[in-house]
Amino acid sequence: MLGVFQTSQKLRTSLRLLSRAGLPPVDLQVQLLLRGRSPLSATFSRKLHLGPDGPASSPAAAPRRLPFSRVTVEDLTFFRKTLPGRAITDPDLVQSSNEDWLKSVRGSSEVLLRPQTTQEVSQILSYCHSRNLAVNPQGGNTGLVGGSVPVYDEIILSTSLMNSILSFDKISGILTCQAGCVLENLSLYLEERDYIMPLDLGAKGSCQIGGNVATNAGGLRLLRYGSLHGTVLGLEVVLADGQVLDCLSTLRKDNTGYDLKQLFIGSEGTLGVITAVSILCPRKPKSVNVVFLGCETFDQLLKTFQLCKGMLGEILSAFEFLDSECMRLLNTHLKLANPISDCPFYIVIETSGSDSDHDSQKLHNFLEEAMTSLLVTDGTVATEESKIKTLWSMRERVTEALTHDGFTYKYDISLPVERIYQLVTDMRQHLGKRARSVVGYGHVGDGNLHLNVTSPAKDPALLASIEPFIYEWTAKFQGSISAEHGLGLKKRNYIYYSKSRPAVAVMGKMKTLLDPKGILNPYKTLPDDLK
Amino acid sequence: MLGVFQTSQKLRTSLRLLSRAGLPPVDLQVQLLLRGRSPLSATFSRKLHLGPDGPASSPAAAPRRLPFSRVTVEDLTFFRKTLPGRAITDPDLVQSSNEDWLKSVRGSSEVLLRPQTTQEVSQILSYCHSRNLAVNPQGGNTGLVGGSVPVYDEIILSTSLMNSILSFDKISGILTCQAGCVLENLSLYLEERDYIMPLDLGAKGSCQIGGNVATNAGGLRLLRYGSLHGTVLGLEVVLADGQVLDCLSTLRKDNTGYDLKQLFIGSEGTLGVITAVSILCPRKPKSVNVVFLGCETFDQLLKTFQLCKGMLGEILSAFEFLDSECMRLLNTHLKLANPISDCPFYIVIETSGSDSDHDSQKLHNFLEEAMTSLLVTDGTVATEESKIKTLWSMRERVTEALTHDGFTYKYDISLPVERIYQLVTDMRQHLGKRARSVVGYGHVGDGNLHLNVTSPAKDPALLASIEPFIYEWTAKFQGSISAEHGLGLKKRNYIYYSKSRPAVAVMGKMKTLLDPKGILNPYKTLPDDLK
Repeated sequence: MLGVFQTSQKLRTSLRLLSRAGLPPVDLQVQLLLRGRSPLSATFSRKLHLGPDGPASSPAAAPRRLPFSRVTVEDLTFFRKTLPGRAITDPDLVQSSNEDWLKSVRGSSEVLLRPQTTQEVSQILSYCHSRNLAVNPQGGNTGLVGGSVPVYDEIILSTSLMNSILSFDKISGILTCQAGCVLENLSLYLEERDYIMPLDLGAKGSCQIGGNVATNAGGLRLLRYGSLHGTVLGLEVVLADGQVLDCLSTLRKDNTGYDLKQLFIGSEGTLGVITAVSILCPRKPKSVNVVFLGCETFDQLLKTFQLCKGMLGEILSAFEFLDSECMRLLNTHLKLANPISDCPFYIVIETSGSDSDHDSQKLHNFLEEAMTSLLVTDGTVATEESKIKTLWSMRERVTEALTHDGFTYKYDISLPVERIYQLVTDMRQHLGKRARSVVGYGHVGDGNLHLNVTSPAKDPALLASIEPFIYEWTAKFQGSISAEHGLGLKKRNYIYYSKSRPAVAVMGKMKTLLDPKGILNPYKTLPDDLK
Repeated sequence: MLGVFQTSQKLRTSLRLLSRAGLPPVDLQVQLLLRGRSPLSATFSRKLHLGPDGPASSPAAAPRRLPFSRVTVEDLTFFRKTLPGRAITDPDLVQSSNEDWLKSVRGSSEVLLRPQTTQEVSQILSYCHSRNLAVNPQGGNTGLVGGSVPVYDEIILSTSLMNSILSFDKISGILTCQAGCVLENLSLYLEERDYIMPLDLGAKGSCQIGGNVATNAGGLRLLRYGSLHGTVLGLEVVLADGQVLDCLSTLRKDNTGYDLKQLFIGSEGTLGVITAVSILCPRKPKSVNVVFLGCETFDQLLKTFQLCKGMLGEILSAFEFLDSECMRLLNTHLKLANPISDCPFYIVIETSGSDSDHDSQKLHNFLEEAMTSLLVTDGTVATEESKIKTLWSMRERVTEALTHDGFTYKYDISLPVERIYQLVTDMRQHLGKRARSVVGYGHVGDGNLHLNVTSPAKDPALLASIEPFIYEWTAKFQGSISAEHGLGLKKRNYIYYSKSRPAVAVMGKMKTLLDPKGILNPYKTLPDDLK
């Protein structure tokens, strides 16, 4: 994994030493970078940290650096004047923003800007636009597809200091805040006021609402509260040329012209920098229950889902599944005991409602029906918080169990719900003994499958058997090759498996319209053949 | 109202007579039209049917006809060949598509095309694009802002024959259908399968799902199931040049590139013609209750809303209001008796749930709390369908009662919920004795106010007192001057009251990008100063 950027890393280390020796650190760095720009950094076609299994022609490999300007002393002077004390060039501080949290992608930016206001973001982008400097907008840097870090030397524009709550309307439940608010902080703020955020993610302690919106984050509450395209009521966005686009409506209904904000939801920072968000928040549920069930077949699991939607109705808030292979890994690697008897499939159902007696009774009726009709063979219910956590961990810790099973090839696929598990079965058959484990789990309620394949070590031949097989299979059933993670750098060239050429061509035109110089998050989301 | 198009009306009558005399009707019409095109029809700046109260410079007046081509014999030959028997030129048949259902706007199109397939729509648009012929896409023609009918001689492209249901997934509740399916037909189809449409409108017997999506229809279920931006999962759209944009995903989650379909939701047929829709449908509720309550103040009404959201939680499906002036009109003009004692404000609450006992108990608890804490002073509950209808009619028939009160000036405003009624109070004070009645009612749950002002007859001075006062007031509180009706022809120039200039400028660029010749639904949605 290491060593891909050996040269630039060495350069940075030398610079750091020089800097410690009392020399003016940044200016010198810039001079050295300017001197040393070619041929290496200007023409080097950077690969992801794919190691030996990444063929040179992998669609995941980054394209060549585009001819953006490089940061000069004058640029740094401008940034320092605009953001006093918040234009960071100390390599140690910039480093963590250069690398994604999976440590799978690493950029070589030398400048991290930390604006506090929309006006500052506007000034920065206006300047970068006029200077043709590329910019990498960054929220909590918790993305999984290499979309949140620079590929080369893009200036990192972090929203971390834009973390003020601007307003909250207790009657309507509409929250307005800056883009850099951490999701968990917003949740805590709202819970004190008897509301919750309409989305919840594993990364909530770090991820920011601006990044959530920019990546159209899905998460655990989508089944109940729907996607951000429905719950986000307004956005303030700074365009590539620094123009502020104020669509920060706090209204549930507004049919005056095109709903421009929608275009920025899920555009991964390539069309504009989101600086503020208004979002509709649901009331905090008064009662939560979790039930863990076992099924003999996936068909029975789907029938249970249907029954559950009918009988739990408005209180159903999650319907997740894992297969027996997941359970085996949980048992083997994490010593988690199966809370029920062994079954080929397991379901985790969550209810959230406003009356605990009613919710328990609905759940009881549903379980009785599911058992009587032999859809489920075993099950257990939790109403206490500790047992709820235990049951949820059977679903949530599958990822962790996988890491102990060997090198993991991870996929996040959306499919018509009745097709979800067929992909796992077909993949298992297709790979045969070449894979150690092929496991399936995910959000049945959303038609979202997490398919994972493990092997004792990285295995290029195995990867070649998985891809493009998995993408072709998904495309055949009109699925999405990225249900919730986005395309970022890693998956940008796979877009055609899920989107038509005319649609991708229109996306390219939208990009050109809103960011004619292409300075915003270059090399991401759109495929190379459009650039 | 009549007489605005006297000349062209006369021409049409003559043509009809000639046609009845056995002469080749359409070709002759076309020749006559071509001969008689200028100066009248080419330069005449058409006004809405505003009558004497419409000043010449009214922003609602249509702009001059743009230099689109006029339909020739060759064009008709092409249309007839492409759509055998479905290229309508009989003036009697075209007439009803020229006029909106409020009979407030009337176009002079001579051609009504009724494609059955996406391919046919594509062929038509490709042809019209190459010929620079303007096109007016039309669904059920139930719009209220003059967006669904031609302004001049635009070719009417009706989706009425595109009425096939393409698929329905009983597990996920995802329906895919052609754009011309009538909303009520879809509802009936789904109800047989234990599902409902996520939207419901008064116009459901005529309106089509394609038109609903193109206008981002709100309606009665928005409070519970959210906007179409969240429930529409996919669209198939034909662009102005005939290119088919296939974004007809049937997935709940798909983060592969920009979500282009969002742009067409609410664009009123100006960016593309929607030919198919996939939409997420909720399960049919097993239990419905309606309660009618009285409050002393609007502040108490808002507190009741808050209490209700907390205690009814997931089963709340509507929270509507009317004021005592509405009740007076219901009593006076429709002889509807107040079901409770007289109060300044009335609330209609609806619950929809999966268990009638639970729902009744929640409602009971809420009512007890609302009464004990003196938020409401009187109330009545309905669980039987006939009484439910009676209570709902107190809200639904306000519009009808208003028509008996005199000439009505109607407004559809979105505001922060706590401001809703202040606008009514301010308007009443502002107008004083100049108005006969100033009434307020609407969807509190969505922050959507219907403000209506009546007078014995049309009154230009009264109108001048209402506008722009109401738009300025709305803009001052960041409201929307069109909550759910759209802008169409009538309100296009008021857009700046609710959207910033940079935002409108971006909308203009989107229009140019997707429809460079501007042939799709010209004169609508965007303000004249962009064109």
